[in-house]
Amino acid sequence: MPDDMARPLVRGRGEGGASRNLEALMPEPGALVIGILGTGDFSRSLARRLVASGYHVVVGSRNPKRSLPLFPEDAEVTSQMEAATQADLIFMAVFPEHHSTLLQLKPALAGKTLVDVSNGLHLNRDGPSNANQLADLFPESFVVKGFNTISAWTLQVGPRDGSRQIFLCSDNPNAKNSVMQLCRRMGFVPVDMGFLSSSLEIENLPFYLFPSWHIPVICTLSLFFVFYLYNFLRDILHPFIKEGKSVFYKMPIETVNVTLPSVALVMLALVYLPGLCAAYLQLYWGTKYNRFPNWLDRWLTRRKQFGLCSFLCAVLHAVYSLCLPMRKSARYKLLNAAFKQVKQGVEDSWVDEEVWRMELYLSVGIMALGLLSLLAVTSLPSVANAVNWREFSFIQSTLGYCALSMATIHTLLFGWDRAFAPDQYRFHLPPTFVLVLILPMVALLGRLALLLPCVALRLRKIRRGWERSQHIRFTLTDGHSNGLEDVSNV
Amino acid sequence: MPDDMARPLVRGRGEGGASRNLEALMPEPGALVIGILGTGDFSRSLARRLVASGYHVVVGSRNPKRSLPLFPEDAEVTSQMEAATQADLIFMAVFPEHHSTLLQLKPALAGKTLVDVSNGLHLNRDGPSNANQLADLFPESFVVKGFNTISAWTLQVGPRDGSRQIFLCSDNPNAKNSVMQLCRRMGFVPVDMGFLSSSLEIENLPFYLFPSWHIPVICTLSLFFVFYLYNFLRDILHPFIKEGKSVFYKMPIETVNVTLPSVALVMLALVYLPGLCAAYLQLYWGTKYNRFPNWLDRWLTRRKQFGLCSFLCAVLHAVYSLCLPMRKSARYKLLNAAFKQVKQGVEDSWVDEEVWRMELYLSVGIMALGLLSLLAVTSLPSVANAVNWREFSFIQSTLGYCALSMATIHTLLFGWDRAFAPDQYRFHLPPTFVLVLILPMVALLGRLALLLPCVALRLRKIRRGWERSQHIRFTLTDGHSNGLEDVSNV
Amino acid sequence: MPDDMARPLVRGRGEGGASRNLEALMPEPGALVIGILGTGDFSRSLARRLVASGYHVVVGSRNPKRSLPLFPEDAEVTSQMEAATQADLIFMAVFPEHHSTLLQLKPALAGKTLVDVSNGLHLNRDGPSNANQLADLFPESFVVKGFNTISAWTLQVGPRDGSRQIFLCSDNPNAKNSVMQLCRRMGFVPVDMGFLSSSLEIENLPFYLFPSWHIPVICTLSLFFVFYLYNFLRDILHPFIKEGKSVFYKMPIETVNVTLPSVALVMLALVYLPGLCAAYLQLYWGTKYNRFPNWLDRWLTRRKQFGLCSFLCAVLHAVYSLCLPMRKSARYKLLNAAFKQVKQGVEDSWVDEEVWRMELYLSVGIMALGLLSLLAVTSLPSVANAVNWREFSFIQSTLGYCALSMATIHTLLFGWDRAFAPDQYRFHLPPTFVLVLILPMVALLGRLALLLPCVALRLRKIRRGWERSQHIRFTLTDGHSNGLEDVSNV
Repeated sequence: MPDDMARPLVRGRGEGGASRNLEALMPEPGALVIGILGTGDFSRSLARRLVASGYHVVVGSRNPKRSLPLFPEDAEVTSQMEAATQADLIFMAVFPEHHSTLLQLKPALAGKTLVDVSNGLHLNRDGPSNANQLADLFPESFVVKGFNTISAWTLQVGPRDGSRQIFLCSDNPNAKNSVMQLCRRMGFVPVDMGFLSSSLEIENLPFYLFPSWHIPVICTLSLFFVFYLYNFLRDILHPFIKEGKSVFYKMPIETVNVTLPSVALVMLALVYLPGLCAAYLQLYWGTKYNRFPNWLDRWLTRRKQFGLCSFLCAVLHAVYSLCLPMRKSARYKLLNAAFKQVKQGVEDSWVDEEVWRMELYLSVGIMALGLLSLLAVTSLPSVANAVNWREFSFIQSTLGYCALSMATIHTLLFGWDRAFAPDQYRFHLPPTFVLVLILPMVALLGRLALLLPCVALRLRKIRRGWERSQHIRFTLTDGHSNGLEDVSNV
Repeated sequence: MPDDMARPLVRGRGEGGASRNLEALMPEPGALVIGILGTGDFSRSLARRLVASGYHVVVGSRNPKRSLPLFPEDAEVTSQMEAATQADLIFMAVFPEHHSTLLQLKPALAGKTLVDVSNGLHLNRDGPSNANQLADLFPESFVVKGFNTISAWTLQVGPRDGSRQIFLCSDNPNAKNSVMQLCRRMGFVPVDMGFLSSSLEIENLPFYLFPSWHIPVICTLSLFFVFYLYNFLRDILHPFIKEGKSVFYKMPIETVNVTLPSVALVMLALVYLPGLCAAYLQLYWGTKYNRFPNWLDRWLTRRKQFGLCSFLCAVLHAVYSLCLPMRKSARYKLLNAAFKQVKQGVEDSWVDEEVWRMELYLSVGIMALGLLSLLAVTSLPSVANAVNWREFSFIQSTLGYCALSMATIHTLLFGWDRAFAPDQYRFHLPPTFVLVLILPMVALLGRLALLLPCVALRLRKIRRGWERSQHIRFTLTDGHSNGLEDVSNV
Repeated sequence: MPDDMARPLVRGRGEGGASRNLEALMPEPGALVIGILGTGDFSRSLARRLVASGYHVVVGSRNPKRSLPLFPEDAEVTSQMEAATQADLIFMAVFPEHHSTLLQLKPALAGKTLVDVSNGLHLNRDGPSNANQLADLFPESFVVKGFNTISAWTLQVGPRDGSRQIFLCSDNPNAKNSVMQLCRRMGFVPVDMGFLSSSLEIENLPFYLFPSWHIPVICTLSLFFVFYLYNFLRDILHPFIKEGKSVFYKMPIETVNVTLPSVALVMLALVYLPGLCAAYLQLYWGTKYNRFPNWLDRWLTRRKQFGLCSFLCAVLHAVYSLCLPMRKSARYKLLNAAFKQVKQGVEDSWVDEEVWRMELYLSVGIMALGLLSLLAVTSLPSVANAVNWREFSFIQSTLGYCALSMATIHTLLFGWDRAFAPDQYRFHLPPTFVLVLILPMVALLGRLALLLPCVALRLRKIRRGWERSQHIRFTLTDGHSNGLEDVSNV
């Protein structure tokens, strides 16, 4: 086999020729023969799309006559050997467990590009990948992994709907190039994932089910469960046991509505705590070049998901709260209160402190929700892509801390002075909002401490590359070594 | 005319030369001459963008002197003949009805690529398209259709805002290639639509007004109208006729608020019914290779729009419901109830069953709305593009059926035992929720039936390619024929 | 230095060769040597991504031994001179103030492409840009500006998250081309910004903080402040001064909730007024070829932001309104009203006019909010990209005017006949809604006037290119000059 690196990049004609030959940029796709081995759904959709993109397609079938009517008119359907011989680039659209049945095509496939589009049957953590096995079977061909994340449906309707990215990897850069160009011409966006060793990762892609959401969702659910139980004990079980009052009707709405904001606020604090941890670790180490512990790294990359879980809880809390006055129970209570007021002859039941408390915590709560909504909108991919780095950090950091502060004030105003009322300590348990406030207060105070000029300056120096152990790198006497240091845009 | 397939792809220099010549990948755009015939808004915006992308632009005008000041400095403005002669690729930016006035340029345009950017005057269902007519007028040129979906404004501000896709078609792959590359360099995403026969479709694109929304919106409006009338009869006309009670004030809000959830639930059921129809048809046929009837095909592709209409109704229902306690009518009713309670000396008007019913159906309703919101968010293009196939089907199918179940339970709880109360059958009409529940129940029961192991297994076999009439294809004695079958990722 | 325009585009092999050589489309990236000068965060992330994309990377460091462990295995770390000599294309990843320390590499860098990735330290309005300064230092190299808007983080995780666009400019088209191709292979979308004179703009990009939002946000805040003060005077100060009644508890919620819809409606009118101004100016001028005054141009481009500010206020108004019945103050007022009703023996307090007024304005308000929400959703970039021009203008113009009409009717119904009640003119100030209605009424009446057949026809003629001063251009006797006029898709 000749060394493919020695090949000329583009065949020349020998002399200058038309120097403004715009049409000459890419080979006309009609002159390329793309082979497809296999006649399933995927093959058919692929053939249709390739033909629509102007390629000459040869389908290799075990039974060409029976398969012929399934394919578009412009595609040639022939025997496997014939297809393998004719084609310059071959898609292997057969189940991976049958790759070995194609071994007789080995000589015909030698020196050609094979695209392995297969998926595993389940999440495969160890390998070898299907593509690696194919490469072992056909060592003289150039295996490219890809297209397995694209459904037959997407191929058929074209890449206007659904994901347009095709992840590719190969050990042969030329083979990968040609498949990338094929992708682009079909309207997809090829994403280069490097060498064939990445093929296991690519084959596993279709099996992931929101991997980045596992921890945040588990976290949300556990917090919900814990706080719900706590509130159930305090608000429902306590009056039942102590006074024999049955208020179990509160379980579907009122208890949920006390639990949701607790979860929302704790989750929001969990968005900002890892960043603070990182900053304090860097201050402690005196350098930014130490690796963070794994748990912190993972936590830092999940902040967006934590934030969105928090937002979801906050919105549900808002909806539940707005539903409160609509309920029959609220109506009955109000009627009974009116009856009582009339019986007792109280002309004006107005309590100014209660009114102010509620007006204030409602209005701060609405502002917190508004800020959280802005944060949520800017985490939509299409919006996030339209802002620059400074805008993104303004929203996520400045607005984010504003939202955290607002939510904390909302909770403080809700609590008012009840943290100091002994009757609030039912079963000796403190009111929920007291527990909830711990983490947000830690986050806000930790952030404030970082704003102290001396701390802020040191942190900024560290983030620009300064290290405590290597002061020399920031002395400006040797401008050169400094100058070549850092062009971080972060 | 020479066969363009025989041309060399890229002019060579004759000998090896600098083998790492990175700059040599594309011809410098400055060396290409792009002609534009016509001097309207579109021409001017196009000229500006082409110059910004580094091309040499020649504008052909009937009156070059007058047109000169309208164009950017770097663009040459000259006579039409001169422009046609100089340029390698020509944009025809004139009204299609005046294409024939350019016939004298025929010799100068021979062998060159003409881009037809024109739009029709109205939706044209029959053709021939403008591009086909142009190709007939200039048979020796290579006509490419495209750019008609792009506005002069998008051209001017660049493709950062608005749609970036440019749909192209041509019978000449080389000509199409060069225009595709031009698009890419200008920052647009070319989409290959195949042969020039697609030009009619491309010319019609700007005239479509949400074609995929027509049926779902009509469906929503008809359902709304029918249910509104039904509720008007039962809730407003019945008390007026039978008891002389005028409750017409309910028309703007209360009747709408009973109608909206009905529409939402029926529409949601209509999202899942076509999939069930398809599954049962496949089970009945014993194969997946039969084509679905046309109405089912169209219905299947409109499920997203049905779902979003349902979501819109559900959200409006939520807002209307939340507005209920805010109304003066609610206030007056409450005051009058308080008066009555005091007069009758009822100390506690609490009805436990009513309280539980409302707490339950409210909380289930909020959950249903939450799930529907998740579904709606994931149908945003930028979010849908970021999830893989398994995640998409988890959300749309698993979460979707959860939402449908929740909404059905919400309605059942709302109904409580009132379906069996004779006084609910006003004018002998059953309560609305009874009618509304029919389709969702059918969908849910149909789905449950598909989960029965024997049915589920058979359906899975069929979807993997098995056919009742051709058992041979799944016998594993002949591994080869099976192996080459199916690599469906669906 | 040889003229780079004279170079062949792609090195040829001399004779025809394999004519279907698909792999030959691009040079294998492995054969290209990309140099990086500098060893900071950005360098390291860039090196990692380039290696992953298949390039051969040489990093030039002042201290190669110390830097070696920071870079991926496949990258070569060597001296600056060695890197500059080996590489075909060099990234300058050093602080711009140290560019001059690289002058000794001048001969090695001659004739090569230098990519300046640096950012300024602050927003620089005058220039010269870093890239211009670099080009002055290395006149024999080809400077390309770019990558400064990309963070080290985006480079590291790949372009799947965050913005994918890379803005490039250069005076040398070949150099720009090669960097564009490099971008594409790394998975980014290069955007050609023209000549190196655009480099200042590109360097300023990361410093912008929502430039298009400044005026709309300032406008919203000023309107809020003015209307809040006005409402405070009328609703809180007036009863305090005139009757000694302290209703300061209304400040956090009720006054805000009267102010928000005022701001929302005025801002919505401000969305449609500039378009009307433009239309009337065109009618007055009798041509569309006059430039609009600057303030109008800027206003026209900010309409989306004005609309979203209006939407935000409208949503907050809805949330505040829904919170009203939940407040303690509402509860106390209701209880006191019940007490009063009982004392006065009023069995039925129902006021039909009040009921109808509220039912009507609530339901129209909900519709207005629904329409505004549709408008807001379609201004999400990913949704806006999926609609064609006709759909976009249908939503933004037709639906937009519907929303404005609905919101105006909502306000009119809210006002009812109170504009004519003398007691509403506290301190001789008219009710807020009277002031608020001025601009929307102007916008709606202005729009209606444009629908008059004679005006509409004239405007359409002007927008198709007709000019009052040059009637000749629309006479159809000279079909040619007309034919070459306008292919505007707007």
